[in-house]
Amino acid sequence: MSSQAPHPTLLIPGPIEFDDAVLQSMAHYAESHVAPGFVKTFGETLSMVRKLFQSSNPAAQPFVISGSGTLGWDIVASNLIEKGENALVLHTGYFADSFATCLETYGANATQLKAPIGERPSFEQIEQALKEKPYKIITITHVDTSTGVLSDIKRVAEVVRRVSPQTLVVVDGVCSVGCEEIAFDEWDIDVVLTASQKAIGCPPGLSILMLSGRAIDTFKTRQTPPSSYYASIANWLPIMQNYENFKPSYFATPPTQLVHALHTTLSQITARPMSERYAIHAQASDRVKAAVAELGLQQVASKPENQAHAMTAIWLPEGLAPPDVLPGLLKRGVIFAAGLHKQVATKYIRFGHMGVSVTDPNRSDVDKAIAALKEALTEAKQAKGL
Amino acid sequence: MSSQAPHPTLLIPGPIEFDDAVLQSMAHYAESHVAPGFVKTFGETLSMVRKLFQSSNPAAQPFVISGSGTLGWDIVASNLIEKGENALVLHTGYFADSFATCLETYGANATQLKAPIGERPSFEQIEQALKEKPYKIITITHVDTSTGVLSDIKRVAEVVRRVSPQTLVVVDGVCSVGCEEIAFDEWDIDVVLTASQKAIGCPPGLSILMLSGRAIDTFKTRQTPPSSYYASIANWLPIMQNYENFKPSYFATPPTQLVHALHTTLSQITARPMSERYAIHAQASDRVKAAVAELGLQQVASKPENQAHAMTAIWLPEGLAPPDVLPGLLKRGVIFAAGLHKQVATKYIRFGHMGVSVTDPNRSDVDKAIAALKEALTEAKQAKGL
Repeated sequence: MSSQAPHPTLLIPGPIEFDDAVLQSMAHYAESHVAPGFVKTFGETLSMVRKLFQSSNPAAQPFVISGSGTLGWDIVASNLIEKGENALVLHTGYFADSFATCLETYGANATQLKAPIGERPSFEQIEQALKEKPYKIITITHVDTSTGVLSDIKRVAEVVRRVSPQTLVVVDGVCSVGCEEIAFDEWDIDVVLTASQKAIGCPPGLSILMLSGRAIDTFKTRQTPPSSYYASIANWLPIMQNYENFKPSYFATPPTQLVHALHTTLSQITARPMSERYAIHAQASDRVKAAVAELGLQQVASKPENQAHAMTAIWLPEGLAPPDVLPGLLKRGVIFAAGLHKQVATKYIRFGHMGVSVTDPNRSDVDKAIAALKEALTEAKQAKGL
Repeated sequence: MSSQAPHPTLLIPGPIEFDDAVLQSMAHYAESHVAPGFVKTFGETLSMVRKLFQSSNPAAQPFVISGSGTLGWDIVASNLIEKGENALVLHTGYFADSFATCLETYGANATQLKAPIGERPSFEQIEQALKEKPYKIITITHVDTSTGVLSDIKRVAEVVRRVSPQTLVVVDGVCSVGCEEIAFDEWDIDVVLTASQKAIGCPPGLSILMLSGRAIDTFKTRQTPPSSYYASIANWLPIMQNYENFKPSYFATPPTQLVHALHTTLSQITARPMSERYAIHAQASDRVKAAVAELGLQQVASKPENQAHAMTAIWLPEGLAPPDVLPGLLKRGVIFAAGLHKQVATKYIRFGHMGVSVTDPNRSDVDKAIAALKEALTEAKQAKGL
C-alpha cells in the first residue's frame, strides 16, 4: 500500500508517479549543504549518476544542479560552443526548436535538420549535413516529448565520429535517461543532459548532465570565457569534483531535499542492471503499442524503430480533440497529456509509461490506463455522434 | 512534537530548520504541472509572494523559478542591463564580489563601492558615485550572509531617486526576505531577488524575484535581446502572468513539490502582518546580540544600525578558529556555520536565527544555541590553554 494520499494516476511524459521512499526523502529534515552527512549523500549521488549512464571513464563528469531540464541547454550553449560557431540541430519535434533558440541566444549559428512530424532525419541526411560545414556540436533529442519520436543516438554518434570526429555529440535525454538504452562511454557520447522528473523518478527541480572528457577539454580550451554565470561549467566543475570526493564546496546552495530524493531513486535504479530496466520499459511499451493498434489508432511516431519506449503519442480519431478525451480519462483516475507539437497539438494525446508505473510489480497503472483509454474513447465518440 | 527524525538544530544562515507542514508538502504526490490543482497552487503562491514584499502594485511582477538564489543574479544581469552599461555594486561582503562577476559575465561594467569588513558604504559615498557616471542599475546586498552586515535599502533607494532617478534599485535579499523589513512599493525598489531556504523557510531550490513596473519596462525597451535563455524574462514573464491568472502555461517544468512547500510556508507567513514577523526576528536578534556581548565577543558587523536581525557573525577570541568551536556546538546539538568572507574566514563563525527557530513558540532553539555557544567556547579555550 502506498502512503500517498489518493490521487489520479499521473501518466504524462513527466513528471511521473513517484515511489513512496522517494517522496519521503523529499521531506528530509534540514541539513547544512557543507556538513558531512549531506556531502556524503551528494557525493554518492554523483557516483550513481555515472552508473545511470553506464559510464566508468573517470574523465567523464556528472553534474547535478538546481534547475529544470531546460537549464541543460544553457549549460551546453554557454560553455561548449562559442559565438559564431556552428551547431547542427536534429529536429524530431518541439524541443529541437527551443534548443536551437537557446543556442542562438548565446551566439551560435544553429542549423536545423528537420524531419516530417513523426519521422527523424536519415543517417544519410546527417552525414551530408556534417560534410557541408564544420560543426562544433550536433544536438539530438533522444526522445522528443512532444512526438514520442526516438532517435538512434548510437548510430548518429557513429556517423559523427566517422565524418566529423571533433564534433561534440550532445544528447537531450530529458525523456530518455532511465528508460532508453544509453551507453555513454561505449557509444562515445559527449553530453547527455536530462531532468529529474521523468524516467529517473525524482520530483522536478534538478538539471542532470554527463559530460565526456572531450567535452570538458573543449570547455577548457575555449577562446572566450563562458557566456553565462549560473550555467557556467567553470563555476560548477570544481564543486561536482569536490562533492564526489566527499569534500564540501560552495558555489550556490544545492537543493538538499531534491538531492536526497535523487539519491533514493538512483539507489533503487542502480541496484539492478540497467539492461533489465530498459527491457521492462520495452515490454510495457510493446503492451501499450499493441493496445493502441487494437483500438484502431495510429501513433505520431511513424514506425517501430522510431517509437519511444516510455511514452506513446497517439493520434485521436478524426473529429476528436484532447478536451474530448482527457476528462473521460480523469474520471477513470488517469491523467494523460494533450498534444504539444504546435502544428498538430489539437490532434493527439500523450501517454507516459515510465518509472514505477512500469517497474513496480504491485502497480497496474498501464492496464488501468489502457482500459480507461478504451472507455473514454468510446464515450467521446458517442458524445460526438461518431 | 515535530514529526521529523531527531537531528542537530540547524542554525546557519540558510538552509534553516523547516516546519513539519512545509516538509510534508515536499512529499506531495505527483501532479501535472499544467493540471488545475497545481495551477491553483502556483497561482496562489505567486499572489502570496506579493504579500511577502508588502506589494499591491499590479505593475510589479513576482517570479518563482527552479534554481538557487544565485540564478537571480543572472536574471538581473542578462535582462535589466546591456553590454557596456554601468552597474554600481555596493560591497558589504563576499556576495557583492560574486554579483559583480555575474554582471561582468553578461557584459556590464561593474564598479564596486567597497566598505571595510563589517561596514557599509556611506550614503555620501553612494551619492558621490552616482553623480560620477550614469548607472543603469545599483545593487545592494540587503544582508550579506558572509558578514551579517545589514544595508539600509530604504535610504539607499531615496538617494538613488533623488540623484539618479532612472537607475534601477536591485536588492539581493537572499538573507533578508522574510526577516528584514521590505516595503517594495513604498520604498520604490525595482528588484528584490531571493531564495527559498532562508527566512522564507522552504527547502532550497527556488529562485524568487519581485520586479517593479519600472524594471519590467526597462526590460521591454532593451536594445538587444536578453543574453540568457533559461534566465530570460521574455521566457518567464508570460508563464508567471498566466499561472497567477490560474491559466496553465509551459516554458520549463516547475518544481511542483517545492512550489507546494513554498505555498505552505507563505500561507503561514502571510497569515500575520509582516511587521509582526520583523519584530519577532528583531527581538530574537537582540537576545542573541546581548548574549554575544555578555560572552565578551564582538560582531563582524560593526554597529547596531548595520547588524542583521536574522544572523550574527561573531569574531572568535584570539587563538581560536571555527574548527575549535563548531564540533563543541555539534556535540551539544547545534550547527553554526564557519566564516565565509575570504579574507577573514578562519576568524569568525555565523549563527543564523530565523524562521521557525524564532517564530515557533514551541521551539527553544535560540536559548539552546546560546547555552551551547557558551559551553563550547569555554571548552575550546581550555583545550587551547587560553
